[in-house]
Amino acid sequence: MTKGSPGVALDGSLELDPQWTTKILSNFIRTELHRTGLRDLVLGLSGGIDSAVAVYLAARTIEPPRIHACLLPYRTSSEDSLRDARSVVDDLGIDAETIEISPIVDGFGKTTGEVDRLRLGNVMARARMTLLYDRSAAHRALVLGTSNKTELLLGYGTLHGDLASALNPIGDLYKTQIRSLAEHLGVPESIRTKPPSADLWPDQNDEDELGFRYEEVDRLLALLIDARVSRATAIEAGFSAGVIDDVTHRIVRTQFKRKLSIIAKISTRSIGWDFRYPRDWMT
Amino acid sequence: MTKGSPGVALDGSLELDPQWTTKILSNFIRTELHRTGLRDLVLGLSGGIDSAVAVYLAARTIEPPRIHACLLPYRTSSEDSLRDARSVVDDLGIDAETIEISPIVDGFGKTTGEVDRLRLGNVMARARMTLLYDRSAAHRALVLGTSNKTELLLGYGTLHGDLASALNPIGDLYKTQIRSLAEHLGVPESIRTKPPSADLWPDQNDEDELGFRYEEVDRLLALLIDARVSRATAIEAGFSAGVIDDVTHRIVRTQFKRKLSIIAKISTRSIGWDFRYPRDWMT
Repeated sequence: MTKGSPGVALDGSLELDPQWTTKILSNFIRTELHRTGLRDLVLGLSGGIDSAVAVYLAARTIEPPRIHACLLPYRTSSEDSLRDARSVVDDLGIDAETIEISPIVDGFGKTTGEVDRLRLGNVMARARMTLLYDRSAAHRALVLGTSNKTELLLGYGTLHGDLASALNPIGDLYKTQIRSLAEHLGVPESIRTKPPSADLWPDQNDEDELGFRYEEVDRLLALLIDARVSRATAIEAGFSAGVIDDVTHRIVRTQFKRKLSIIAKISTRSIGWDFRYPRDWMT
Repeated sequence: MTKGSPGVALDGSLELDPQWTTKILSNFIRTELHRTGLRDLVLGLSGGIDSAVAVYLAARTIEPPRIHACLLPYRTSSEDSLRDARSVVDDLGIDAETIEISPIVDGFGKTTGEVDRLRLGNVMARARMTLLYDRSAAHRALVLGTSNKTELLLGYGTLHGDLASALNPIGDLYKTQIRSLAEHLGVPESIRTKPPSADLWPDQNDEDELGFRYEEVDRLLALLIDARVSRATAIEAGFSAGVIDDVTHRIVRTQFKRKLSIIAKISTRSIGWDFRYPRDWMT
């Protein structure tokens, strides 16, 4: 890794300087808030490591009572998740609200009948988004994103659901980097050591569902995306052709989750084509 | 207007060649569907002119039964809106489903207590988005966007709500251009002539709420955005400094609705910064 560089090195190493990274990400949160003129943050706290790291970063940046955490369990959500989320609230002294989303999700369910768990999971994620954005209006706050780079690249999340936010401090960190940062930030051990899960249904496990171990896929992603190595070089580095092709295919086919709607271009200046200032242009 | 150019000319004229425009927008829908390998479309049909124009374009492009319209009234929605939406369904022979969203919106309301109508309207828009995306999974379809350029530029819509779609054929047409295209496409007269309304509460009227007449603001937007004229030139063209500044301020402060979440950059290739292929790259 280049000395002083907090991110991924060109050799695909996932090593991370936690102090540098914390400083940069805290500055990011401060700057992006300042640019909007708002002073509060809202986020969904799941009890998992990603939202925990995001909120520990936020709590180093702004006064904890200005952070409004929403705990949004569904009836099948793990009790441990809720307990872990509460331990974060207590540890940091942030504002928190618990809303059981089952009645809302059931309301959608009445219009659909029985659906597969993927569709149900998407409805859950979008119900949570709706609540978070509503609370952000109530608190005059921005919604803090909690998706990491691994899940963003693999498209492991719901568009206009958990992938929706105003600013995301951890979206350029792979899952394994989140883990090392979590330790530095003092995230409780039970959150750091439990198996990663989206907790959309009982015993859901990210790695079973994805078919990859995070340690493995993160090293591969760092090679393919950050170090831009060829397929042949990735094979030399020890990855099977099957895994490389599977991961590449996933990245390609989920690209729509990382882009805005496509607008048909017809005029001289069109949104998304030639009209594309940064959000805070002229402010 | 440049001969043969379907969009806005550099003099800010909103004149539109409806045949050219229809051909281009129909090709857009066909191409974007084809790129994904999907063959069906889902859209919310409000009874207003924008979703009507979008679906008339779609019905010229794919077989009508492959278009799945969702009529999503709330308890305060106008009866006329529903009747107008149904007349479109009958006229085109598309597939349709009506879902009363009041119970779902009430489910959110139980968690919030009394809220202002802006927050309520946002919840309604996001409940509709959730249903449309759910149905798009059921039908293996793409969500067709129905926001026009005027409302996109003025930020008159809900992020992750009505602004959410996979492809938007009308997002580069100003409201007044939508009107002239509607006539060409054969959109029923009652839809074309009624006052524009988001229909989020009784007697809501876009122009009252925005504080501009569409005819006026569209001419101004075409000058400022497409023709890129200065503030002084817009004043010479007959617009008051107050309106120009109000419109400019609105465009600037709603830019966040036209951009994705900002991810803190930390690595060599970061989503939204240097990792930004088109959606169908490599497919």
